[in-house]
Amino acid sequence: MEQSAASVPAALPYYVAFSQLLGLTVVAVTGAWLGLYRGGIAWESSLQFNVHPLCMVMGMIFLQGDALLVYRVFRKEAKRTTKILHGLLHIFAFIIALVGLVAVFDYHKKKGYADLYSLHSWCGISVFVLYFMQWLVGFSFFLFPGASFSLRSRYRPQHTFFGATIFLLSVGTALLGLKEALLFKLGSKYSTFEPEGVLANVLGLLLICFGVVVLYILAQADWKRPTQAEEQALSMDFKTLTEGDSPSPQ
Amino acid sequence: MEQSAASVPAALPYYVAFSQLLGLTVVAVTGAWLGLYRGGIAWESSLQFNVHPLCMVMGMIFLQGDALLVYRVFRKEAKRTTKILHGLLHIFAFIIALVGLVAVFDYHKKKGYADLYSLHSWCGISVFVLYFMQWLVGFSFFLFPGASFSLRSRYRPQHTFFGATIFLLSVGTALLGLKEALLFKLGSKYSTFEPEGVLANVLGLLLICFGVVVLYILAQADWKRPTQAEEQALSMDFKTLTEGDSPSPQ
Repeated sequence: MEQSAASVPAALPYYVAFSQLLGLTVVAVTGAWLGLYRGGIAWESSLQFNVHPLCMVMGMIFLQGDALLVYRVFRKEAKRTTKILHGLLHIFAFIIALVGLVAVFDYHKKKGYADLYSLHSWCGISVFVLYFMQWLVGFSFFLFPGASFSLRSRYRPQHTFFGATIFLLSVGTALLGLKEALLFKLGSKYSTFEPEGVLANVLGLLLICFGVVVLYILAQADWKRPTQAEEQALSMDFKTLTEGDSPSPQ
Repeated sequence: MEQSAASVPAALPYYVAFSQLLGLTVVAVTGAWLGLYRGGIAWESSLQFNVHPLCMVMGMIFLQGDALLVYRVFRKEAKRTTKILHGLLHIFAFIIALVGLVAVFDYHKKKGYADLYSLHSWCGISVFVLYFMQWLVGFSFFLFPGASFSLRSRYRPQHTFFGATIFLLSVGTALLGLKEALLFKLGSKYSTFEPEGVLANVLGLLLICFGVVVLYILAQADWKRPTQAEEQALSMDFKTLTEGDSPSPQ
């Protein structure tokens, strides 16, 4: 169905609102878990570890998810403004996640623990490197002025696919980390339905729900941002230039 | 780009072959892990537990993934034949997964262990129920003759989205289970790069790669099965009937 630039699909705002409610709940429940069962957060002492899950959930889950939704929410603003917001949200997410990474490596170093031995850490470091590369490549194609219109058009579907994939991998990595934190502390007490175990399981399900709702919004073809008048004009110019459909000399 | 029914996108067979190579490697590495470090597989004794990961990986990962790819691979066959194959592969996947589920519940019962306390089990049982519901609803819409053409068209995008989501959740649940099995057995030895830990981490990465490659094949818009001549005719008839675009009396 063709949409005018002004129309907003009727159900979209409700789904976006629901995603935000879920995302904020995920951050709040992570904070509650760390506050209630892990002694809270600090840069010194053992509490430094707790900076890691909170920062990763805020950066790699909530802010990354919101950065993906920018093109569904800002439908009438200039394309460039929306792009800059998308890029900025990803930078904030990246910086917050970097603090979370420094926290865990620093904590391991102080405690003399080994680094990068677990599946969670292998996934985490891979996803973080992929996220950084995706940002760099995205920046050079879409914000840096050099790339041609045709190059951008060809790269766009790949950028979208890998963006969504990196987000889903971030959710998966968070679940592995949560499971690791639970099993290291609770051990066999996990099977006695300890309150911490139940809260963390609920947090895991909330993380999955946030991931699925963001993916659902992204997957709806007719919820995509409609092409604006000036972009259509540019696209037509480009088509004329490349397809040799120049005005005939008559 | 419009495709004729006969054409196959050039890169598609290579991606499908790669996905099969990955899928079979995942099953083989699961078998190797259980054989080398867990004493192999049997229905009696403690080895009964090992039936669970092998069946779940074969059913909920490999066969479910392949069932999703059926419409990309069988492009020229009659739609009905392809649908039946899609449904049958899902039935096989479901039965194998059911054996895997019975194995773990039976093992827990014999050992007196608690059921359904972990995030892995909560995710697993939810995904299994969703998978069964998706099959039932899919069957009644697409194979049972009652549903109208318009109802099928409206449900199809939902079926596709939730099919892919359930597959991704299955991969995530397998990762959680793998991590749980590792941490329960290895504990703090996991951090000393024990061979079993490294093999299981590699298995985790292979599971993720299989999930990403299947998702990539499904996400390419121009790799979708082209509409066949007889389906196009049916669709045109339907359009004429519903849009009131009947031949004018002149």
